[in-house]
Amino acid sequence: MKLIATFISILYLSGNLFAQNPDSLIIKKIYDEALGSGQAYTNLEYLCKKIGPRLSGSQNANKAVDWTKKLMVEYGFDRVYLQEVMVPHWERGAKESAYILDGTTKIPVRIAALGGSIASPSQGLLAQVIEVKSFEELRSLGENVVKGKIVFYNRPFDNKLFDPFEAYRGAVDQRSQGAIEAAKLGALGVIVRSMTNIIDDNPHTGGMRYQDAVTKIPAAAISTKAAELLSQKLGMKKSPAIRLYFKQNCKTLPDAISYNVVGEIRGSVSPERIITVGGHLDSWDLAEGAHDDGTGITQSIEVLRMFKSLNLKPRNTIRAVMFMNEENGLRGGLKYAELAKQNQEKHMAAMESDHGGFSPRGFTIQESPTAMLQIAKWKHLFEPYKVTELLSGGGGADIGPLKTVVPEIVLIGLKPDSHRYFDIHHASSDVFENVNKRELELGAASMASLIYLIDKYGIE
Amino acid sequence: MKLIATFISILYLSGNLFAQNPDSLIIKKIYDEALGSGQAYTNLEYLCKKIGPRLSGSQNANKAVDWTKKLMVEYGFDRVYLQEVMVPHWERGAKESAYILDGTTKIPVRIAALGGSIASPSQGLLAQVIEVKSFEELRSLGENVVKGKIVFYNRPFDNKLFDPFEAYRGAVDQRSQGAIEAAKLGALGVIVRSMTNIIDDNPHTGGMRYQDAVTKIPAAAISTKAAELLSQKLGMKKSPAIRLYFKQNCKTLPDAISYNVVGEIRGSVSPERIITVGGHLDSWDLAEGAHDDGTGITQSIEVLRMFKSLNLKPRNTIRAVMFMNEENGLRGGLKYAELAKQNQEKHMAAMESDHGGFSPRGFTIQESPTAMLQIAKWKHLFEPYKVTELLSGGGGADIGPLKTVVPEIVLIGLKPDSHRYFDIHHASSDVFENVNKRELELGAASMASLIYLIDKYGIE
Repeated sequence: MKLIATFISILYLSGNLFAQNPDSLIIKKIYDEALGSGQAYTNLEYLCKKIGPRLSGSQNANKAVDWTKKLMVEYGFDRVYLQEVMVPHWERGAKESAYILDGTTKIPVRIAALGGSIASPSQGLLAQVIEVKSFEELRSLGENVVKGKIVFYNRPFDNKLFDPFEAYRGAVDQRSQGAIEAAKLGALGVIVRSMTNIIDDNPHTGGMRYQDAVTKIPAAAISTKAAELLSQKLGMKKSPAIRLYFKQNCKTLPDAISYNVVGEIRGSVSPERIITVGGHLDSWDLAEGAHDDGTGITQSIEVLRMFKSLNLKPRNTIRAVMFMNEENGLRGGLKYAELAKQNQEKHMAAMESDHGGFSPRGFTIQESPTAMLQIAKWKHLFEPYKVTELLSGGGGADIGPLKTVVPEIVLIGLKPDSHRYFDIHHASSDVFENVNKRELELGAASMASLIYLIDKYGIE
Repeated sequence: MKLIATFISILYLSGNLFAQNPDSLIIKKIYDEALGSGQAYTNLEYLCKKIGPRLSGSQNANKAVDWTKKLMVEYGFDRVYLQEVMVPHWERGAKESAYILDGTTKIPVRIAALGGSIASPSQGLLAQVIEVKSFEELRSLGENVVKGKIVFYNRPFDNKLFDPFEAYRGAVDQRSQGAIEAAKLGALGVIVRSMTNIIDDNPHTGGMRYQDAVTKIPAAAISTKAAELLSQKLGMKKSPAIRLYFKQNCKTLPDAISYNVVGEIRGSVSPERIITVGGHLDSWDLAEGAHDDGTGITQSIEVLRMFKSLNLKPRNTIRAVMFMNEENGLRGGLKYAELAKQNQEKHMAAMESDHGGFSPRGFTIQESPTAMLQIAKWKHLFEPYKVTELLSGGGGADIGPLKTVVPEIVLIGLKPDSHRYFDIHHASSDVFENVNKRELELGAASMASLIYLIDKYGIE
């Protein structure tokens, strides 16, 4: 990254000499349109408030498919269609209940079943609790200690890490694999500290996995506030005095039919060449999926709407894709890549917005130093909007599978300011009210501007 | 700014070669302390929730003086003291009421008296409405049209401007001078569209002025939602059919005694040389004054707390100053400058945080190209924290008067991301819940880091 940064800095100098070139004027028009006449915010309000949570396989997910399709037809995109895909269908069922049993005192705590988990026994699960911070610590305790207990994973985010996504990556193994590791040692269930930087009383759900030949045990997230309390209780008393009860009623149903929703503006020169821009349409069931990923959806549609509204005729075909099932299966992303291969599509680049609708700061470029250098040449065009960070990094979960079928594709992720993201991630607080209109619009404008440049100049 | 930017870019290259120098290690410790063990967020919660709104002259303002003094004493700062200052004392009184009278239908609308305004007549004011977008438009209508009416200033923010502060500066004359210009033409009262980027139903208050020899007339802010409605009604019908009623009960009392609160860590080498860091302790009465300016207050105290906690012994004296009365008089800032002159104090630099506790992006430096170049040399130290914007601009209202008595002082403002600021500015939504813990802490760490460098190397 150091060399890249050096290069960017040098290019920035030369870029300043041509601040008012035609590209900068077009990009100004794009930002003006987004900030002055943008529709992403109103669309997001509809998606959040009129449709709401939309987990794969749910009725709301179908509604979101229908609505985004209708919206793109109304905008007059050249082609709007669905890509059928079978998706997992997991349901939370009746709300969970849980309490700490301290002697005979029941202290209610807030939990949420992890996505994909089995239910607890119908009468709930009451057991002693073993608190650990890592799989190593768990294994060191061994089966004798763990068997018949509830394992409580309580390793917090490292808040000292500047990038909250790094803190997330450093903690999320507890959620994704915790049930497997605990079951191997005979645990009856798993409670995982919520994946968030803050202390509050919202449980944050998220995906978890089981493993063939390892017993499936129920797994739930507990709010960080309750996790702190439980840890404190466990530290104060010998553990037999403290037990935890939890009951959850989730189940996995047969896979359901669902869809990616695709809208296109046909290329005027090379319609067979495709630039994809997308987000994921599904969300967790606890909230409105505003930042995750209603913002990516409405920004992607806004990119195409602005191209039309500003009469920018792309040379290549630009596609907005609402991917289904990012949260618990990635089936939509896999299907999109499968169809791209099957139809021998020519994909130039794909961009995803799935890090929230916060103030945009730059882009990540996945494994492509030449594309990084090329985009760095355009950095001066983004200086007026403070969208200046270029980092090597993943483009996004949904577009990732494209790389395996079209190795030459350039994958790009929108990189917004990330400090608020995990406050609301996968929790009931991920609602429309926590999205700022300007930040959302600036993200859409940044995406549209980079796509405009890629369409005009190509990318390697 | 172009030359500066060039210089920064070049310096950035060389800076990268020495990423692990002692300064970068100290700065890492400061960020770690803020993010890992910071107390600004807890302190802000206390200021917002236990004290709350604290307009100059109010009982709550006194409570805030007592509490911040006590807090800094408890932190063990070397010297904590008050600077007495007489401040304006304006009170809103009973809540305002207002409605649009459309024929015989009353449509309630949300307004808030502007700070400093007189009350309406005790029975309220009912009159026809003249909507204008500017003073020019008002004057072109002339006294014949305006006399006996309520003037409705309805020029919105220009949302296309990237910097919301620029949009604010482009609209705020309506609020600050609107009553004067309307009264000159015989208007009975003034209603001003709230100063915000968004459409919502919160009136945003703020300061206004009268002028000697011009009749004082009552002035209120109206929510943007209500402003849109009123404008629509006025456009639909001949204006005699639409009237507006408003009643407000505010009054100006005699000036009250209040205080700046000052805490110091004494310099180990040159204690007579002073670096000031501050925010303003007063807030408007409608909200908790969280971003305006509880964040600046708690960040400034946090700067000194971290110096102590990390055992950083400053060479010069570092002062945290809680200025009183920024919102409607600036008496605290003027008093601070007056005392600096009177005591012949040696001030090196002053920094203010009064643009909200959002994700920090850089600093503004006021009228000092040499200081700009010097701070630019340190830019690489802030790269890991993405605090990289250096702009020529005002340091802050409270520290501004220092420049007149100590011309050689360097004035610096913390520059956070500004897109959310005017959503909540001077409105009931400026509450603790709208402050993000990490963003607040990163601001405090950024301020402390720059002060550490200025203290160590000096500044010209």
